[in-house]
Amino acid sequence: MATIKDVAREAGLTVGTVSRVLNNRGYISQATRDKVYEVMKQLNYQPNEVARSLSKQKNNTIGVIVPHIVHPYFAKLISNLEKAASDCQYKILLCNSREERERELEYLDMLKSNRVAGLVLCSGTVKTEALAALGIPVITIERIAGSGTASVECDNYQGGILAAEELIRCGCKSIINFGGVEKNEMPADDREAGFLDTCKKHGVTGTSWKSEENEYYTMEYHEYIEKMLKENPKTDGIFASSDLIAAQVLQVCAKLGIKVPDQMQVVGFDDVNISSLTTPPITTIHQPVAEMAKTAIELVIRSNQGELVPTKTVLPVNLVKRGTTV
Amino acid sequence: MATIKDVAREAGLTVGTVSRVLNNRGYISQATRDKVYEVMKQLNYQPNEVARSLSKQKNNTIGVIVPHIVHPYFAKLISNLEKAASDCQYKILLCNSREERERELEYLDMLKSNRVAGLVLCSGTVKTEALAALGIPVITIERIAGSGTASVECDNYQGGILAAEELIRCGCKSIINFGGVEKNEMPADDREAGFLDTCKKHGVTGTSWKSEENEYYTMEYHEYIEKMLKENPKTDGIFASSDLIAAQVLQVCAKLGIKVPDQMQVVGFDDVNISSLTTPPITTIHQPVAEMAKTAIELVIRSNQGELVPTKTVLPVNLVKRGTTV
Repeated sequence: MATIKDVAREAGLTVGTVSRVLNNRGYISQATRDKVYEVMKQLNYQPNEVARSLSKQKNNTIGVIVPHIVHPYFAKLISNLEKAASDCQYKILLCNSREERERELEYLDMLKSNRVAGLVLCSGTVKTEALAALGIPVITIERIAGSGTASVECDNYQGGILAAEELIRCGCKSIINFGGVEKNEMPADDREAGFLDTCKKHGVTGTSWKSEENEYYTMEYHEYIEKMLKENPKTDGIFASSDLIAAQVLQVCAKLGIKVPDQMQVVGFDDVNISSLTTPPITTIHQPVAEMAKTAIELVIRSNQGELVPTKTVLPVNLVKRGTTV
Repeated sequence: MATIKDVAREAGLTVGTVSRVLNNRGYISQATRDKVYEVMKQLNYQPNEVARSLSKQKNNTIGVIVPHIVHPYFAKLISNLEKAASDCQYKILLCNSREERERELEYLDMLKSNRVAGLVLCSGTVKTEALAALGIPVITIERIAGSGTASVECDNYQGGILAAEELIRCGCKSIINFGGVEKNEMPADDREAGFLDTCKKHGVTGTSWKSEENEYYTMEYHEYIEKMLKENPKTDGIFASSDLIAAQVLQVCAKLGIKVPDQMQVVGFDDVNISSLTTPPITTIHQPVAEMAKTAIELVIRSNQGELVPTKTVLPVNLVKRGTTV
């Protein structure tokens, strides 16, 4: 295999000059640069990223920890994180914590050992101290991780307002917010607050049901939704905290003979692909996942370069009207 | 930051002994091993994976190239690859080629530079020679990449048979297979063959429609499905080559006032989460994605260790009956 010495000899340059070209350091004429790349190609020389990363004590890899890859929200988020990173010549090391504290700590150790440029954390069991001890930038998405980290969120409170307003506009009198995980405190909890405040403001009966952690992991809410609808027969509108839940609301309504949107209005959250694949397709709150991913990656890179970055960035949401509201 | 020398001094051992413990090489007593780990913990010593990887000229990272992260099939596949890798103490470097040859080649270069242990390739534009030149194990999933690689597939032909048999059992007389990408040759094309052979065997009219590449990337098939149904008004059964397409078939049928499953029977393929989230949920062919992912990761690791591995592994499929067939 060709080495940097072979490239230097063949190009008639010093190893130092070739190294400066590879590392994009100091002044190098375009002619020299072209010559080096030409010879590299001739000799099929592969700069050893591992060695370069060691000499620089950092690399162009960003760790991403999510709790759940197959959940449509995280699938969309990962896809957008990969794109944003790739656009900046960074790579993604993907870790699935399954929201288990032990696994998350193992991954943190592993990422530190691998000298990643930073971490995008979308899973939230680890305490602040453990993250601060990492000594690398940590950007959270839709999670609360505490001091020393920077968070990227969508405007969850506004999302709750928009959902409630849409249901009220459709004439609903008794509406329920369904979702949120009982145990974990998350920015998404603000959806409930925005929803309840808006119901109160308009004098509409609004209540909120939380789900169990187990339902979040199995992505299975049918039984819970059916129980809720049977116990609250006057319900004429539902704000589901994810499109995944909203799709299951449609299935339960079909089972119980409740027509959507004639007898029941439904608004989801996220705007992931499921929302446009159900019959009828789901009216939902669009979460700007592409922009959130891009922001998180930029914050990692800027923070890694020593810049001071905002500790909280909130991006706007909007209502996407489809077929589950009139 | 503590170094290996600090660990050796504190433990009263030589650097060589500590290194042997870290690399699990040579005979080391359990007492020595315990001592080293105890001191590492005391000093908060992090073995530098980058340096270790350099000294070993390989590492415990596996590259994964997919064409499309957010497609529900690939989301499920990535999730399972990450799990299988993590179970073997390997990490995933995730790359999204968008099936663009240029991007794919860039990623291959990058992965080679990073001395990955191997590659799981689920994207298929690169020619055999480029892969052979990599000098690392390449395992494909549901792709044809040619000599020097090993493939993992599900039994696509059998899937086509099972889908056709289910539609015929439901009394369908004129059935259509919808899906497959016109341009790319893929193992999934065998679904069509199994389907057509079975129709012929049972004397049922079976035809096949291919989609355009653009539809695969935008995941948008409505217009095409509507055209097909209008041009073939006698159609009473559809075998969609993915659950994503099947979900859109349900939407188009609703739009055209065709009742599923009373007037139209539908069978999907993949068994991804969408298939259980539509109304009615989709009868589909289960692709054993978890087992396929586990097999691919094991083949990478075994091949990387110099073992001879099977060049083709085919895993069985089965019919999952839900609500779109009677």
